[in-house]
Amino acid sequence: MKLKVVTKILDANEKIAQENRDVFDKHRVFVINLMSSPGAGKTTLLEQTIKALSPELKIAVIEGDITGTDDAVRIDALGIPVVQINTGGGCHLDASMVQEAISDLPIKEIDLLFVENVGNLVCPAEFYLGEDVKAMVLSITEGHDKPLKYPMMFQHSKAVVVNKIDLLGYLDVDVQKIRKDIYSLNPSIALFEVSCKTGQGIDGWIDWIKTGCLCRRQ
Amino acid sequence: MKLKVVTKILDANEKIAQENRDVFDKHRVFVINLMSSPGAGKTTLLEQTIKALSPELKIAVIEGDITGTDDAVRIDALGIPVVQINTGGGCHLDASMVQEAISDLPIKEIDLLFVENVGNLVCPAEFYLGEDVKAMVLSITEGHDKPLKYPMMFQHSKAVVVNKIDLLGYLDVDVQKIRKDIYSLNPSIALFEVSCKTGQGIDGWIDWIKTGCLCRRQ
Repeated sequence: MKLKVVTKILDANEKIAQENRDVFDKHRVFVINLMSSPGAGKTTLLEQTIKALSPELKIAVIEGDITGTDDAVRIDALGIPVVQINTGGGCHLDASMVQEAISDLPIKEIDLLFVENVGNLVCPAEFYLGEDVKAMVLSITEGHDKPLKYPMMFQHSKAVVVNKIDLLGYLDVDVQKIRKDIYSLNPSIALFEVSCKTGQGIDGWIDWIKTGCLCRRQ
Repeated sequence: MKLKVVTKILDANEKIAQENRDVFDKHRVFVINLMSSPGAGKTTLLEQTIKALSPELKIAVIEGDITGTDDAVRIDALGIPVVQINTGGGCHLDASMVQEAISDLPIKEIDLLFVENVGNLVCPAEFYLGEDVKAMVLSITEGHDKPLKYPMMFQHSKAVVVNKIDLLGYLDVDVQKIRKDIYSLNPSIALFEVSCKTGQGIDGWIDWIKTGCLCRRQ
């Protein structure tokens, strides 16, 4: 019974996600569904990414949060289009929320759309929003056991940004284990070790996005 | 339609949680449902807590994880009863999972039971397991915006351990704002600023648990 219900909801989500996909295809927008635990650094990564890629690329952001507009305010300060979704308690974004947000964006003019999901290392990975790729952020402050404990998000992501490496000297964390376990879950994942605070290592991530946008336009 | 389904599942959960509650009442076990984001330090807090309180109190632990037994192995090394639940993808523990785990514990002999929930700052707060209290860990590495962005867990918890304060000098984080925002959400919450790594500040948390156990036995 429970399973049947869940399947139904996912089917409804898939249908709307496909409608989103059609809109993105029509306008050749490269869409990244960005996921992580709370506080891993998604918004800071977006700030750095926008500074590096705008105005070369026309960027927009959909911000997903349970409540509040903190993240949208931060993105808005960079002068690019942003829509804040409040899930009102919901632990992930679904395709219908994104569909509604798209209608408030100048989607025809956008090259690159980030959908910043609710901070949650579990549920967001299960819901397709119509994106081209899922990408995720893992903060090394979360510990080296996280990839094997939360495998699904690592398996579904095309890229992982291992963040806050500026704190490496102050933590009992084995980054080599993080790397090894991520590759064991997903051998083809693009892995970037980064400090969003200092900018260290962010170039690889930026290049990966540029390539994605380029391929999207072909 | 969706809402109706969710209500049904919650009702079923409440019924089983009450059965768990009856077992805990019968044997006067003080039960703490411990929640946090992934990697905030729940298991390390439990290790420190067990070292401080055992054998004075008879402690047991139910470990909730999506997959794996890392945490149960760590608790087992301290020589206390532990049962690992693997949710197989599920983002929170529910009452039926806990009910099954209880049957594998010597519950008659236990004074204090910790249920370490799946690392997730959203969903676990919504599911009553039959516990006396919910408590949570927030790592300061997650940033000072988290209480207002994820209010429900702070509102439902009786105690919050603000962890990893040994890293304070290396982060752009405003602990005063964390404190202020937590109290604005939940004025009666017990708040402990702690480093589980160095042991700093842990005494208050230990005393809070002792008092809980004492009240439970009366």
